[in-house]
Amino acid sequence: MKRHRTAESAEPTESAEPTAPTAPAGPSRRRVLGAAGAAGTAGLALGAAGGALATSAAAEPPTALATVGRRRIAFHGTHQPGITEAAQAHGHLLAFDLVAGAGRKEAAALLRRWSRVAGALMAGEVPPGRLPDTGIALDAGPSALTVTFGFGRTFFDRTGLAAHRPAALEPLPPFSADALDPKRSDGDLWVQIGADDAPVAFHALRALQREAAGTARVRWQMSGFNRSPGATAAPRTARNLMGQIDGTNNPRETDEDFGRRVFVPAGGEPGWMADGSYAVLRRIRMLLDDWERVPLADQEKVIGRRKSDGAPLSAGPDGTETTPVDLAGRTADGELAVAADAHVRVTAPETNGGAAMLRRSFSYHDGFRDDGAPDAGLLFVAWQADPLRGFVPVQRKLDRGDALSRFLRHEASALFAVPGGAEKGGYVGQRLFEG
Amino acid sequence: MKRHRTAESAEPTESAEPTAPTAPAGPSRRRVLGAAGAAGTAGLALGAAGGALATSAAAEPPTALATVGRRRIAFHGTHQPGITEAAQAHGHLLAFDLVAGAGRKEAAALLRRWSRVAGALMAGEVPPGRLPDTGIALDAGPSALTVTFGFGRTFFDRTGLAAHRPAALEPLPPFSADALDPKRSDGDLWVQIGADDAPVAFHALRALQREAAGTARVRWQMSGFNRSPGATAAPRTARNLMGQIDGTNNPRETDEDFGRRVFVPAGGEPGWMADGSYAVLRRIRMLLDDWERVPLADQEKVIGRRKSDGAPLSAGPDGTETTPVDLAGRTADGELAVAADAHVRVTAPETNGGAAMLRRSFSYHDGFRDDGAPDAGLLFVAWQADPLRGFVPVQRKLDRGDALSRFLRHEASALFAVPGGAEKGGYVGQRLFEG
Repeated sequence: MKRHRTAESAEPTESAEPTAPTAPAGPSRRRVLGAAGAAGTAGLALGAAGGALATSAAAEPPTALATVGRRRIAFHGTHQPGITEAAQAHGHLLAFDLVAGAGRKEAAALLRRWSRVAGALMAGEVPPGRLPDTGIALDAGPSALTVTFGFGRTFFDRTGLAAHRPAALEPLPPFSADALDPKRSDGDLWVQIGADDAPVAFHALRALQREAAGTARVRWQMSGFNRSPGATAAPRTARNLMGQIDGTNNPRETDEDFGRRVFVPAGGEPGWMADGSYAVLRRIRMLLDDWERVPLADQEKVIGRRKSDGAPLSAGPDGTETTPVDLAGRTADGELAVAADAHVRVTAPETNGGAAMLRRSFSYHDGFRDDGAPDAGLLFVAWQADPLRGFVPVQRKLDRGDALSRFLRHEASALFAVPGGAEKGGYVGQRLFEG
Repeated sequence: MKRHRTAESAEPTESAEPTAPTAPAGPSRRRVLGAAGAAGTAGLALGAAGGALATSAAAEPPTALATVGRRRIAFHGTHQPGITEAAQAHGHLLAFDLVAGAGRKEAAALLRRWSRVAGALMAGEVPPGRLPDTGIALDAGPSALTVTFGFGRTFFDRTGLAAHRPAALEPLPPFSADALDPKRSDGDLWVQIGADDAPVAFHALRALQREAAGTARVRWQMSGFNRSPGATAAPRTARNLMGQIDGTNNPRETDEDFGRRVFVPAGGEPGWMADGSYAVLRRIRMLLDDWERVPLADQEKVIGRRKSDGAPLSAGPDGTETTPVDLAGRTADGELAVAADAHVRVTAPETNGGAAMLRRSFSYHDGFRDDGAPDAGLLFVAWQADPLRGFVPVQRKLDRGDALSRFLRHEASALFAVPGGAEKGGYVGQRLFEG
């Protein structure tokens, strides 16, 4: 099966993509193209800017700096973008609800427009929207922009497509750490935007919002961030706002069972979800005032890893982040080196029947609460072929006895069916609407 | 006069600083040091990370990517950092109010702690705070972090320092485009944080907030962004969320009168503000739904410049962003090429008695309003030796007849006295407290 298509650019160059531990390069990795194509763009706006970009790049010694803007990810392919690529420096998660009167036909037209606009944006071209481009992203390259579309449970009734609703979209069970805000949860449609440049990400958000006018309106929006490319000397697993290395045990594309765990197989149910995936979103606020009062050694026990470098507590001083966790290991005193309620034990695949999901999250900070604590934490995004075998069993175990959970509040939750990628000339969700 | 000190690092390397049109390199430019010093750091946390950083950099071919993290700006110097350097990709603006019972002594102690923490953070070292470091910035270099401190009008009464309050801190006059929210305006103390990496900026914010506990609490906080380093092939003047190039006419450090316009001279009043500056902040919401309905040609008339490249409308097709604006120029039809109410005419220094301020702003986007419009715009930050000769006369003229004003709402406003930089071993504001 050909899993990835090359993009339409006439100028593929070497990729500037670092080999991030959270999403290493592998044979099935989505093709990342180095340069936004200047060919084929015309007119004012990004066409002109694309030309200027190419000219400047030719006139000056190429620098890795310039590749931050020039990194381009293909929109068309077997899978949608924004799943297996390393998470970008900026992310926007938006849910839309269909407006009254919008049904299957209008939704299909919207997905067709959204796909066309997203494809152009990701190529660094002027988006062919119904309104003139805003110009916000002029001068900048696509900056690793990805746009990903999904369908929520409520979408199917509203569009007369209930017979096609995946069983996997059943509501997630309640968990004891939940303090969910329904207004910031769920939604008919989901758009995930990621880019390594904030104006590029906002430009895409605004272009897609404008394209939805008359069909769907924003239900909620969350924005988050990750490390900027190049902020660390070498790519590293992300650190969250608790200061912990987070994502070490993420499945890797080189794993034999990666595709099976993350993507819906051809021949699965429903058929239109073949090569798609399910995204679980949780807005997880961190109780940082409480967490930061915990002494370092106790923080490490809560996680089961050293804070400085992520090495498991079962490893000796020479351990590193990638040293396998020895869940049976004991200290000289005979205690479990990784405590019974340590986060790394509770989430270990071997204690969860091999459940695994691909986490691709963003940190967030939305100002301060009335008590002075930062409203900050993790926009947790997990990808799996089946939430009942990915997120749900792990969260159930966390709910029963995870030392970390008392420092977290799950404040919003959503689950979306993310279909496979669009073929060239096609659009995301086409097999649902036209199948 | 020695205007800048070198920082304490033993390892200055070449700067990765691009020559941005908004803040070009010049003889008085603050020294930007390439690498965070690994020497002198010890223990867990950033000490260890600093060492790893240096090791990795030596083991791998140096890339410009790595310099994003390694860019270091000196904390100590004649002026505070965060004024003349190119604006970073991420910015946080925070006002603090002193808590009941905190007076001059407590405020001086806070500024001493803040200065010590800011100096360490900007050097990429573990901040010597009262609490253990959060670890959020582990692995990353300082990423061009700057921290800047200022005093608001209310600070002086609350600390018994009314006799030392600068006359320049008189409240700004009201303007007709004002729709100011007092809760998001003013404040006793101001902290400006900028960095090219979001976790590094949040780490600094959290470290400074924790250091203030018991003395001052957050009054308001705003977060914004600019282009990421390397998103454009060559450094360019920023583009705002209206898609306009914004900042072309900023004074340059190479201008003969730059220092006189931006910084309070030695011998000025009050004496403790020598080498300081005044910061005017305006949270300017853009009415993007209205603006984007305006056809391109009319948008260009409102500004007086071409949207694509920023060339003045008085220039021909070969004009560029840096072509001088010809305010008297006429079209073939005899019309003024730059309209009477064009923004570029109203703000032109030659129509404002030479008034000039150094603008160093961030874009912002705080979700959506109830009507579906993005709550987005500009965190306008202007620096000048005297607000009555910088911001105020320009804003008065804009208020009377600027075509752009009807697309803007000023929603918050503040004015802070930003003293000169701290000497090594000293702290910001020392001359106020001990003078």
